[in-house]
Amino acid sequence: MEITQALHRAVQQTPDLPATIFGDRVRTWAECHDRVARLAGALQGLGVGDGDRVAMLSLNSDRFHEYLFAVPWAGGVVTPVNIRWSPAEIASSMEDAAVAILFVDDTFAPAVPAVRAAAPVVTTVVYCGDGDVPEGMVGFEDLIRRGDAVPDARRGRDDPYGIYYTGGTTGTPKGVVLSHTNLLASALGSTASGAFTNPGGRYLHAAPMFHLADGAAWVARNVVGGTHVIVPMFTPAGVAAAIAQHEVTDVLLVPTMIQLLVDAPEAADADLTSLRNLLYGASPISEAVLERAAKRLPAADFTQAYGMTELSPVATLLLPADHGVDRLRRSAGRAAPHSEVRIVDELDEEVPVGGVGEIVCRGPHVMLGYWNRPDETATALRGGWMHTGDGGRMDADGYVYVVDRIKDMIVSGGENVYSVEVENALAKHPGVASCAVIGVPDDEWGERVHAVVVPAAGAAPGADELREHVKGLIAGYKAPGTVELRDALPVSGAGKILKRELRAEHWPQGDRGVS
Amino acid sequence: MEITQALHRAVQQTPDLPATIFGDRVRTWAECHDRVARLAGALQGLGVGDGDRVAMLSLNSDRFHEYLFAVPWAGGVVTPVNIRWSPAEIASSMEDAAVAILFVDDTFAPAVPAVRAAAPVVTTVVYCGDGDVPEGMVGFEDLIRRGDAVPDARRGRDDPYGIYYTGGTTGTPKGVVLSHTNLLASALGSTASGAFTNPGGRYLHAAPMFHLADGAAWVARNVVGGTHVIVPMFTPAGVAAAIAQHEVTDVLLVPTMIQLLVDAPEAADADLTSLRNLLYGASPISEAVLERAAKRLPAADFTQAYGMTELSPVATLLLPADHGVDRLRRSAGRAAPHSEVRIVDELDEEVPVGGVGEIVCRGPHVMLGYWNRPDETATALRGGWMHTGDGGRMDADGYVYVVDRIKDMIVSGGENVYSVEVENALAKHPGVASCAVIGVPDDEWGERVHAVVVPAAGAAPGADELREHVKGLIAGYKAPGTVELRDALPVSGAGKILKRELRAEHWPQGDRGVS
Repeated sequence: MEITQALHRAVQQTPDLPATIFGDRVRTWAECHDRVARLAGALQGLGVGDGDRVAMLSLNSDRFHEYLFAVPWAGGVVTPVNIRWSPAEIASSMEDAAVAILFVDDTFAPAVPAVRAAAPVVTTVVYCGDGDVPEGMVGFEDLIRRGDAVPDARRGRDDPYGIYYTGGTTGTPKGVVLSHTNLLASALGSTASGAFTNPGGRYLHAAPMFHLADGAAWVARNVVGGTHVIVPMFTPAGVAAAIAQHEVTDVLLVPTMIQLLVDAPEAADADLTSLRNLLYGASPISEAVLERAAKRLPAADFTQAYGMTELSPVATLLLPADHGVDRLRRSAGRAAPHSEVRIVDELDEEVPVGGVGEIVCRGPHVMLGYWNRPDETATALRGGWMHTGDGGRMDADGYVYVVDRIKDMIVSGGENVYSVEVENALAKHPGVASCAVIGVPDDEWGERVHAVVVPAAGAAPGADELREHVKGLIAGYKAPGTVELRDALPVSGAGKILKRELRAEHWPQGDRGVS
Repeated sequence: MEITQALHRAVQQTPDLPATIFGDRVRTWAECHDRVARLAGALQGLGVGDGDRVAMLSLNSDRFHEYLFAVPWAGGVVTPVNIRWSPAEIASSMEDAAVAILFVDDTFAPAVPAVRAAAPVVTTVVYCGDGDVPEGMVGFEDLIRRGDAVPDARRGRDDPYGIYYTGGTTGTPKGVVLSHTNLLASALGSTASGAFTNPGGRYLHAAPMFHLADGAAWVARNVVGGTHVIVPMFTPAGVAAAIAQHEVTDVLLVPTMIQLLVDAPEAADADLTSLRNLLYGASPISEAVLERAAKRLPAADFTQAYGMTELSPVATLLLPADHGVDRLRRSAGRAAPHSEVRIVDELDEEVPVGGVGEIVCRGPHVMLGYWNRPDETATALRGGWMHTGDGGRMDADGYVYVVDRIKDMIVSGGENVYSVEVENALAKHPGVASCAVIGVPDDEWGERVHAVVVPAAGAAPGADELREHVKGLIAGYKAPGTVELRDALPVSGAGKILKRELRAEHWPQGDRGVS
C-alpha cells in the first residue's frame, strides 16, 4: 500500500470535494491530483530519483500537503524540518540526509542563506510563499505550471516514505526512517479503534505539520477521506475561527493548546460545536482542563494517543469511554489495534503486572531504523521490539502508565507528592490558566513543592490564596511551598511542557534524573 | 503484523472477557490464550513446521476459532475446507495443498474414511467433537491437555496465513494464498471505514467460518477486540436466539439469510435490538427485504461488502449512509480505505466513467497468488492489479456497479428488462419470501421473463396475482410471463443465489453468457 493510494481514491470518489482549505484558498481533490502529478514531474526534472530526500521547512500550508504527496509520487522521500531548529541544526540534518532540494515558505526564506552556507549539499531551494520568488530560488507555482504530469512512481510497502528527525532537544538529532506500511499501519490501526473514524470529515491542521503527530493525522484523514483545513500555526483565535468557519470535525492538539483554546478570551465567542473528535498527545490532560474542554466542546470525543516518532507514531490509545474513569485519565491507554506493548526489565524479560520497567512495542508501525545508524537501530530494535526509553507500568487490564508521570514525584519531608495531583488541584482555581509543579531543593525538607503558574487573563492569584485552595482539595503537605507566576510555560516543539527547563533553574547540577 | 497479535493484546487487555460463546460453553481470552499455546505445542509435536498446511472440515464452533489461532502460532498455514464439497473434492484439495493434518467435527467425521482413501497425504485426523474419539483419530481436547504451551512462532507480514480454495462450483478449485498482511489490511481498512468499528462488541458467526467472508470478520473482531458468539450454522431461529440471548452487536449475513431472519415465524419473537452492525455481501439487497430488515433491526447499520477471496476479501463497501440513496442500493459501493479499484478494457486501459469493463483491484489485500499455479497467478495479477473477472462500471463518484447485476438483463420482444427491478417488485408482495427472475427461451419473444418464487410461510400466491401486483408497480412488459413456486432457491456456499442453475434448466446448450 502506498501513501499516495488515498489520492487516487479521493480523485475517483470525491473529485469536487475540497482537499485543502487554507485561508481563502480552496482546492478540490481533482485540482490536488493534477497539481501533485505536475509537481512530481517538476521534481523529477530537478533530478529527484527513487529514494532521494526532499526537505520542507515551513509553517503549515496547503502547499505542505501537496509536498507530502508529490515527493513520493516522484519517487522520493520526504524530510520535514523542525521549525524550531537553528540554521545550524537544519543544515546538519540536510547534510546527514543528503538533501539536495529544500522547500521553504515566506517565514523561513530568510534562513536559507545561513542553511546553504552550512549545507552545500542543498542545490535547489523551492520557494513556497505567495510573493516574488527570491533570487536563487525556484517558485513552487512555477514548477507546477511548467511541470508535466507524471504517473505515480508507486513507492509503497517497505519503501521509505519519510525521514523524521527526533531528539533534537536532548541530543544529536537522529533520522527516523518510516516506511509507507509503517505510517499506514498506525493510521489504519488507530482509526480502526473507532475513536476518530469520520469519513468525509474536516480535519484541522493546528499542530505543526512537520511533526509526525500531525503528520499521522494527515495520513489517517487521507485514508478515510475528507478535507484538510489548514492554519499556518496554532493561535487560540485562529483555531477557533477556523473551526467555526469551516465546521471542522476533527483536530489534534496538545493539552496546552486545548487549555489555551478553551480559556482564551479572544476565542470565547466562536461556535465550536462542529468538533466531533479531539485527539491529544504529548501528556495526559488535567482534570480541570478536561472539564472545561468538555463544556466548551460539547460534541467532541476525547482520545489520547501515546507514542513516538519511531512508532509512526501511535503505540497506545486512551479511548473516549476511558476518559469517564478517574484512574484511567492518568494513563496513556492501551495498545492500539495495530500495536503490541510490554513492560520489560533490563534483561528484556516482561515484568509482572504493576511492575515498572521500560515500555517496548512491536508491530507493523515500528520504524525501518535510524538513518545511517545501524548500531543504534540494532540496539533500539533488539529482540524485535522497539525500546522506547520511556519507563512505565501496566495494570491488569493492559493500561499503560508512563513513568515520566509516575516518577514526576516530589519527595518532601519523606512524603511522596505526585506533581499531577497538585497540578490538578491548582488547575481548578479560576485564576489559574495552566501550571507545572516541580520539586526544588529545600534545606529543611529535601525537596519542596514548587508551582509555576500562568494566571488566567486578568487574574493574579497570590501564593497564599493558591495554597489554601489546594489545601481545600488535597492533603496539606502537598500544597506548594512556593509559587511563581509566569506569562507562559516552556514547551517543546510537540507542545510538551518542558519541566526539565523549569527544574534546571533550581538544580544547577542538572536534572535529577527525571525528564 | 501477525494474525496472532490480537490474541496477545486480548489476553493483556481483556483476560476475563469471553473470547468465545458456543452454546453453553464460554471461554475467556485467558483460557483461549492458554489453549491455543498448548494446541500449537501439540501440533508441533505432530510434526507441524514452518509453513505446513493444516486443514479443518467442520461446522462453526469455538474449536474452529482456536484452530485459526493455533495453526499460525505453531508456524503453520490454515486450510479451511468448504463444507459443501464431496469427499472427492475435499481429497483433491488435501493432495493439492499437501495437507498432513485434518481437523473434523462430529458432522464430518463420517466422511473421513472416504477422504483418507482418496488422499493418502493425510496422516493425522484430529477429532473436534464432544463424543468418544473415533478409531484412528486423535482428540482435540487430548491434544490440548497433553500439549506443552509453546511460544508464538510469530508468523506474520508476508508469510502465508491460509490457503482458501475457491472456484469449486465453476471449475477446478484453486488455492488462494493469503498472507497475514493481506488479511489484516482488509480487516483494518474495512474497519477504518467507520462502518463496523465496535470495540468490545459481540460478533455472531452465523455464516460458515470456513468461508473467508466470515473469516475476515473473525480477523476484524480480533483486531478491535470483543467476543465471538458462534452457532454451528445458520438457522433463522438459532441466529435470532443467539442474538437475543448474548446481546450480539455485529453480524455478517448474506441477503438470503437476512430475508429468512426477518421473515421466519420461528424467529419472530426474539429481541434483536442489540444488533448495531449488519454486514452483508454476495449480492445487493432487495428494497423490500431492506425495508423489512430495517424495521426488524431498528438499531442496525447496514453495510455491503463486495470482494472475493483473492482480495482478502474486501474491495468495496457500500456504507450505511449510502443505503439511504435509492440509486446507490444497486451498487457495490466504493473502494474501501485499503483498496484501489478501476474498470479496465481488454488492453487493461481504464475506461471512461460509466463504461463497462473488468473490475480490477490493487492494494495490500491482493493475494500472494494461487497455490502452485504461477501462470494463473501472473495472469490474474498482471500489471500489479488483481483481475476479478467480474464485469462492472463505475459512476462519477466512484461507486461500482457489478455487471453481473447490470447484465442480469432479459431481452424480451426487443425490450430490456432488468431482473433486479422485477425482483424488487415481486418482493414487495406479502406472499413472496424470496425470488429470482431470469430470462428463458421463448419462441415468440426471444426471451421471456420467468420468476422463481419461494412463497412466504403459509402463502401460495398465484401467477396471475403476482403478475398483476408487478404491473401495479412497473411497466407491464416487465411482469413475469411465467411463475414457478419452489421451496428454496439454489445458493452457493457463500449464500449467493445460483441463477445459472436456474437458467440451466431452460437453456440446455448452457448458460447464455451470464453467470
